[in-house]
Amino acid sequence: MLAALFFASTALAADDAPLPPLSIASQGSFFVGGREVSSTTLSSVPKQHVPTGTITVDQMYVHYEVPADAGNRYPLTLIHGCCLTGKTWETTPDGRMGWDEYFLRKGYPVYVIDQAARGRSAFDPSSINAAKAGKLKPGELPLVFSAGHEAAWSVFRFGPKYPDVFPNMQFPLEAQGEFWKQIVPDWSDALATPNPTVPDLALLAARLNGTILIGHSQSGIYPFQAAAIGTLGIAGIVALEPGECPATGSDMRPFAKIPVLVLFGDNIKGSPRWAPRLKQCRAFVHAANIAGVNAELIVLPEVGIHGNSHLMMQDKNNLQVADWLLDWIAQHVGEKK
Amino acid sequence: MLAALFFASTALAADDAPLPPLSIASQGSFFVGGREVSSTTLSSVPKQHVPTGTITVDQMYVHYEVPADAGNRYPLTLIHGCCLTGKTWETTPDGRMGWDEYFLRKGYPVYVIDQAARGRSAFDPSSINAAKAGKLKPGELPLVFSAGHEAAWSVFRFGPKYPDVFPNMQFPLEAQGEFWKQIVPDWSDALATPNPTVPDLALLAARLNGTILIGHSQSGIYPFQAAAIGTLGIAGIVALEPGECPATGSDMRPFAKIPVLVLFGDNIKGSPRWAPRLKQCRAFVHAANIAGVNAELIVLPEVGIHGNSHLMMQDKNNLQVADWLLDWIAQHVGEKK
Repeated sequence: MLAALFFASTALAADDAPLPPLSIASQGSFFVGGREVSSTTLSSVPKQHVPTGTITVDQMYVHYEVPADAGNRYPLTLIHGCCLTGKTWETTPDGRMGWDEYFLRKGYPVYVIDQAARGRSAFDPSSINAAKAGKLKPGELPLVFSAGHEAAWSVFRFGPKYPDVFPNMQFPLEAQGEFWKQIVPDWSDALATPNPTVPDLALLAARLNGTILIGHSQSGIYPFQAAAIGTLGIAGIVALEPGECPATGSDMRPFAKIPVLVLFGDNIKGSPRWAPRLKQCRAFVHAANIAGVNAELIVLPEVGIHGNSHLMMQDKNNLQVADWLLDWIAQHVGEKK
Repeated sequence: MLAALFFASTALAADDAPLPPLSIASQGSFFVGGREVSSTTLSSVPKQHVPTGTITVDQMYVHYEVPADAGNRYPLTLIHGCCLTGKTWETTPDGRMGWDEYFLRKGYPVYVIDQAARGRSAFDPSSINAAKAGKLKPGELPLVFSAGHEAAWSVFRFGPKYPDVFPNMQFPLEAQGEFWKQIVPDWSDALATPNPTVPDLALLAARLNGTILIGHSQSGIYPFQAAAIGTLGIAGIVALEPGECPATGSDMRPFAKIPVLVLFGDNIKGSPRWAPRLKQCRAFVHAANIAGVNAELIVLPEVGIHGNSHLMMQDKNNLQVADWLLDWIAQHVGEKK
């Protein structure tokens, strides 16, 4: 515990040095979406807490900061992936600047969300209490999982298998203990399809009247699904190592006027999890292009950026990747008219 | 859904008007504490997720912002209460400025935490999956609860009972739908005693080398319990409507050099939940004073501030309460030497 404490302090001190202050025009947080649910099993705590009543679920927490020099730049909406929260985009495990602050410093308003039923967005505990009270069969308990360090290792592509490491790998493994603390239980398999985060993102884009939706991994497909609900306010779609892309046969019309980027890191060849996903996304982009969509798939080594894990926003070269991404946005999405 | 969308947009627009930009010297997030747990029931999702491995739990998520003009002011650590997250301190349900930004604008570094097993701080889902797999009796499922709107009504003292309202009550009830979205499931009854958040706060205070710990409701007792572990870095203790104060017979030595404020709102007389807590805290402060502790208990109407609910940081007069609190801090805690 003390080791972790001192490690983190050192990392912060190293960060502190020379940057000018951030000038923030506005910041704050709010929720979008949500629905009310009535339940008789809100609590399994005897006496202290009333089990019957109404709760609100499926809403999505949004935290935002708008820099003073935002001009006409589109806000960037950062959507975390499986087992994680909005923390994904903040200070890296080894104490370097996250993409949230870097994009601010480059003049972009930044919106960081917690997916529905994750982090600061509530999930519904009623079925757990129902099972505890014998009102629900244990087998009907909701699907939930937490990603163990060992299994996450190859999923996040630190190496081919735990605890081996790819020779050029850029994730700051010396701070892996701090990274594991980011992982929270994931209820997504217990939720509706599409995930309630998807309509929440459609609402957010409409409310912002223009934003670039940037999904990662599990949520890489969400911006596409949000556009299928309604394209209002979706100025661009970026899917960072998506778990899946839309099927080649799906309706491409929602993407007709939205620039699309699908971006993968390094060491994907030979990954039983990621090689097929890359292939499936290539097929989608090909089909989208035939349908007239301005879509592009880039694998970072193709543009001279090497060693990125699945967590490119936390890798040691995370700001190099961010710069490349901002260039892509400037060229393909541009600014508000 | 659309009504909520437009309501929130209006509130934000009203907020936008005249404030100068915030100047932020540094911001970021990190975790303190945490321990590794091995489990064979990390997942109940067939095939996709590996059930065996190690996860990290009991860590506390911390988000901070340091204003450029902080000078020697002590950082304020804001600790939310039952069923809530760090969102408590941010933008109010009706879109006004939260205490987090107000304190920043007054020159204080602000640290906002999510309690262990809440929000962005992971809980352990192993026992849910064990019960689902038949490896744990359903009766041994962890204690969890969510606060229903109706039962929370009188606990948060919007009125004596749902849906009645105290005549002078300051909570923005017109935006209650946005407030209910803040409520998340609470695992605290399933955790160790004291709550793992307590040692995490002791670690944070030591790391910050000086902070004022500000607890609310469920967490009102945590700063006292953290001081009992170690006083290093605890420059002051503020308990906002604590669920309990230390017992009159407890060891007062940890508080000997720490200024203490216990603060209650309005309409407490006649509240079956809050009147006894106020009485118990009065007895503690009396005993602490006899032991030489610089402790004070204030009920806001005594200082001319009326109508505050249990959520004084979100009430319509929240900045008036914040001003009073900052005055108390200036007079009783002062600045770093």
